[in-house]
Amino acid sequence: MESDIFEIISVGNELLTGKTLNTNAHWLAKMITELGGFVKRCTVVRDDVDDISSSIKESIKRGVNWLIVSGGLGPTYDDKTLQGVAKALNRELIIDDDALKMVEKKYEHIIAHGVLKKAELTPARVKMATLPKGSKALPNPIGTAPGVLIDEGDIKIVCLPGVPVEMEAIFKESIMPMIMKSIRKFYHEKSIHIIGIMESDLAPLIEKALANNPLVYIKSHPKGRGEGLSKIEIQVTAMADESSTAKKRVEDALEQLKSMIIEHGGMMDKEIMG
Amino acid sequence: MESDIFEIISVGNELLTGKTLNTNAHWLAKMITELGGFVKRCTVVRDDVDDISSSIKESIKRGVNWLIVSGGLGPTYDDKTLQGVAKALNRELIIDDDALKMVEKKYEHIIAHGVLKKAELTPARVKMATLPKGSKALPNPIGTAPGVLIDEGDIKIVCLPGVPVEMEAIFKESIMPMIMKSIRKFYHEKSIHIIGIMESDLAPLIEKALANNPLVYIKSHPKGRGEGLSKIEIQVTAMADESSTAKKRVEDALEQLKSMIIEHGGMMDKEIMG
Repeated sequence: MESDIFEIISVGNELLTGKTLNTNAHWLAKMITELGGFVKRCTVVRDDVDDISSSIKESIKRGVNWLIVSGGLGPTYDDKTLQGVAKALNRELIIDDDALKMVEKKYEHIIAHGVLKKAELTPARVKMATLPKGSKALPNPIGTAPGVLIDEGDIKIVCLPGVPVEMEAIFKESIMPMIMKSIRKFYHEKSIHIIGIMESDLAPLIEKALANNPLVYIKSHPKGRGEGLSKIEIQVTAMADESSTAKKRVEDALEQLKSMIIEHGGMMDKEIMG
Repeated sequence: MESDIFEIISVGNELLTGKTLNTNAHWLAKMITELGGFVKRCTVVRDDVDDISSSIKESIKRGVNWLIVSGGLGPTYDDKTLQGVAKALNRELIIDDDALKMVEKKYEHIIAHGVLKKAELTPARVKMATLPKGSKALPNPIGTAPGVLIDEGDIKIVCLPGVPVEMEAIFKESIMPMIMKSIRKFYHEKSIHIIGIMESDLAPLIEKALANNPLVYIKSHPKGRGEGLSKIEIQVTAMADESSTAKKRVEDALEQLKSMIIEHGGMMDKEIMG
């Protein structure tokens, strides 16, 4: 059994001018991995209908189970994600009744709190409820723009706002339970920090540990400035149908690797639980 | 005249499991934008030869002037970037004399400092000097693995290590001067923070300011929790052949926008120089 394959698409010029660090993709990747999903690729595109549309078509063509798109759902002219999705899927954009009710309710709430005196459904507000045909609107417990879920054949396409707290809230409330239902794999990871051995001398030891433990993944991350005694983090990960199996695979590989490292003059610095 | 088009490819499983935040792509995007380049897309792929190769081929097919790849140049089995590049460009991997000298020199330096007693050119070390045919090795002033520059027709493909300090050092020393020589545009940006107006009411004002100032780009970033009086950042950017022209375009658009915002009950919170 394989894990579900996920791709993440982040939309926003600010991510490609270096103004904003892409913490959304990082948060999503971490959540999805911990839930047992496999994030195969992340793409960052500009607020451009053609770029958004082509990146979605490319993901679908590569083969995914889930496509998570974040950013570009707001009321301004440069929030173009749903136009891009509609174009990629060849669907009309229509005012969605559920989404419109969600947006109206938000403004009623704001008026009730005396922040605004009136709040007509201006074109900018109706825009947030204009979704590709066949979409399901997902409630936004924090902001105004609803999230969007689209079934495209067997692929689930999820659109979330770019504001981190809103993205996280919709993901946790509406998407996480769906992923947990379809989950088929458990993920475990553990890292150790070592000193006293160079990464190039560590390389053949890792290869040996992998040959003995073919179901884990081992990666070394040099932490220092590349000189002799710098610190290296070694991360061991595994996926399995049972949580205990994934854990055992990681522990077994790590024990073997540790013995070999000590044999070759290396030392453990500290252990970090994944 | 158009800006040079850049794409960034980040290689590393750790970026797609949520272990590591992709600060490399952020740093590169910021540097390239400030140098006047246009970053059109960023792709994050796993340590997988086919994924690396296909992402490179896709970038080339979309049309770029520069392709900056970071991560996967080290000595371990999962450092697969140069295999992926060689496959994408249909080039052989060969031991590069210059790169081998750079690697040898690093280990001589380490031995001279007494950190290591001996440092043969093990397969793991020779691997760092095994480059796609026709590559130019770029000195790594901090770590061991050299950077790589490949001319593929008119496209410049640059491979940098994933360790941030090494990536930054090679970029600054070897790539920045090349970009500055080919630069054709200057970039300017300025942001203001406003309060007292909702993003959906701001949307038509931004559209009006854009209609009057077609050569700038205006983007609003809601900073609060989406309710009435939250703060909104408005970022205005422009590119021009002259630095002073880019600056004037930004200032003109910002002045008009400020007047309209104040007319509609909004207030300036603070100004941030780009």
